[in-house]
Amino acid sequence: MSQSFSSFIPPTRVLMGPGPSDVYPQVLEALSRPTIGHLDPKFVDLMDEVKQLLQYAFQTNNALTMPISAPGSAGMEAVFVNLVEPGDKVIVCQNGVFGGRMQQNVQRCGGQAIMVQDEWGKPTDLNKVREALQANPDAKALAFVHAETSTGVLNDAKALCQIAKEFDCLSIVDAVTSLGGSELKVDDWHIDAIYSGTQKCLSCVPGLSPVSFSEKAIEVIKHRKHPVQSWFLDMDLVMGYWGKGTKRAYHHTAPVNSIYALHESLLILQQEGLEHAWARHHQNHLSLKSGLDKLGLELVVEQKYRLPQLNTVRIPNGVDDGQVRSRLLNEFNLEIGAGLGTLAGKVWRIGLMGCGSSQKNVDYCLSSLEAVLG
Amino acid sequence: MSQSFSSFIPPTRVLMGPGPSDVYPQVLEALSRPTIGHLDPKFVDLMDEVKQLLQYAFQTNNALTMPISAPGSAGMEAVFVNLVEPGDKVIVCQNGVFGGRMQQNVQRCGGQAIMVQDEWGKPTDLNKVREALQANPDAKALAFVHAETSTGVLNDAKALCQIAKEFDCLSIVDAVTSLGGSELKVDDWHIDAIYSGTQKCLSCVPGLSPVSFSEKAIEVIKHRKHPVQSWFLDMDLVMGYWGKGTKRAYHHTAPVNSIYALHESLLILQQEGLEHAWARHHQNHLSLKSGLDKLGLELVVEQKYRLPQLNTVRIPNGVDDGQVRSRLLNEFNLEIGAGLGTLAGKVWRIGLMGCGSSQKNVDYCLSSLEAVLG
Repeated sequence: MSQSFSSFIPPTRVLMGPGPSDVYPQVLEALSRPTIGHLDPKFVDLMDEVKQLLQYAFQTNNALTMPISAPGSAGMEAVFVNLVEPGDKVIVCQNGVFGGRMQQNVQRCGGQAIMVQDEWGKPTDLNKVREALQANPDAKALAFVHAETSTGVLNDAKALCQIAKEFDCLSIVDAVTSLGGSELKVDDWHIDAIYSGTQKCLSCVPGLSPVSFSEKAIEVIKHRKHPVQSWFLDMDLVMGYWGKGTKRAYHHTAPVNSIYALHESLLILQQEGLEHAWARHHQNHLSLKSGLDKLGLELVVEQKYRLPQLNTVRIPNGVDDGQVRSRLLNEFNLEIGAGLGTLAGKVWRIGLMGCGSSQKNVDYCLSSLEAVLG
Repeated sequence: MSQSFSSFIPPTRVLMGPGPSDVYPQVLEALSRPTIGHLDPKFVDLMDEVKQLLQYAFQTNNALTMPISAPGSAGMEAVFVNLVEPGDKVIVCQNGVFGGRMQQNVQRCGGQAIMVQDEWGKPTDLNKVREALQANPDAKALAFVHAETSTGVLNDAKALCQIAKEFDCLSIVDAVTSLGGSELKVDDWHIDAIYSGTQKCLSCVPGLSPVSFSEKAIEVIKHRKHPVQSWFLDMDLVMGYWGKGTKRAYHHTAPVNSIYALHESLLILQQEGLEHAWARHHQNHLSLKSGLDKLGLELVVEQKYRLPQLNTVRIPNGVDDGQVRSRLLNEFNLEIGAGLGTLAGKVWRIGLMGCGSSQKNVDYCLSSLEAVLG
């Protein structure tokens, strides 16, 4: 090989986009501890702690609570491939990018996705969901995104799960951006299957996807007619490794160091306390909102549905989207997010997630924006 | 949450099992550098370097060469779900655990796996493969494991790919344990699709799966009749992010820090030189073999098919498998591997992979084994 490269030293950014968010220094330190075997008894003990800490973060007693060894999109796929069989009907709520990804997942499992569409930037309309379920009494599941990272909308997960329960449907919840940042109660709200990511409000590195399945969901998996189409994500096989007891069957090699990091980030969450973390995310959102007002910048989402950890700001007329983001990155080492899909070019997405949800970050973002917007 | 945990400090092990192997300290250091965004221009530059370094490691000019954001089993699945459609016939060679996993993958894609079985611990018989292809002229692909980690056999990848070519079949190669440890030439050998892992001879942390697809394989993917059943592993979507140019479409959030680590481990491989790395793995294997002889311990695999980086040792009569491995772990912090499948309880698997392939490790393993076996 002719070309020779050198070690990569990343710039030190302030990550205020849609994720990854800034990672706790303690988490980076944990990440770099010496690798041990994925069947080492010390690692098996660590896996048990991670499960318990995730149960706390999700507010659940579900035994099947663990991290999938891949990013959030794989967590989404793990939920759908295990619960959906060919011919199954799933009601999918879409009011942003990730509802569309759920639709793709249902279809690729051979299922039928009945879409409940709402405008991007608006919450899912509960009445439409109810109508869809009335029109499709054979629907197996209701799937929706709790915190739509593409628009900054917080959907009413509690009410949606209540509706699913009324219609005796499984509830499937995307909590990639809500876990650790917004109120989320898996057991109290009767959520049947949920997935998240590590790179948002947990302030851990990207690459893992915590999931949890209720007993009801496990029963559905146990009584499948067809094998799960993914070998890697087949929960029955995964649980041979992540299951109870000291005897763990080899399935795949766990991403050992990433699990160290997740453990550390969950410890930090436990030490702060979930309710305090939720309140902090809310408080810093209010502070950002007040500063944006002073700069004459508007949020896209109506106040009562705003996601505190992901703030979608309308780009003022005449302002060059790409140029502003480039200048923030190059002159201030500050990353904010671009709009996705129908919102591309129209909005910026400002994340206040995990340890990045701080008054310091709010101030830095506001002063940098002010400098660039002149 | 009532129970309170503390930070996890792993024991310092010497990893001489089937992987993960010991990780280079420089790789752990790279892993813990500050996270940046997965669309940050600096990260996009890093992705390009990683692709070039992987092309070197695989000895290929394939444009579609990149790491899948999940472990080797997901890399295997990425190859099968993209290349196999319902009804396709695939000849799968099995002489250990991982050929069986390939079979599972073919079947879960709706394909038909025609198995060529050989005894565990013996190499795949080329004549049987030829016969299977003669009997199934409509086979789309020939799939086999280059380095069978479960048995310590190195299959003749070059000859197998030559046979695939004669029969105008795609060749699919599992190189999880061979990449960086044994001669492997993707272009010269006409390999169409290959996947590996980071936690073996690259001495990187577990969690990523480098893959490479030939132009011929890409044409097959482009002309699929059915959508790829996995959204997460759909190479057409993945390439929107990992593809050429500076414009990268968001697909999933890349495991940024793991990519730092992979980059660093590939730099180390480049600096050593592939041929030197292969020779070192061979040399340390010979040294281990000579020491095992002195201890009266036998290798399972015949000399000419032995995998230098994974040595399968017959457990002497009357010796307690579990007790020996426990004592090595607890008294010497040394991990060696247990047997899998039909070899469970009958063999140990001693890995000499990546930076773990050293005279120091050979000596430590031999002296520890000697102490424990008395």
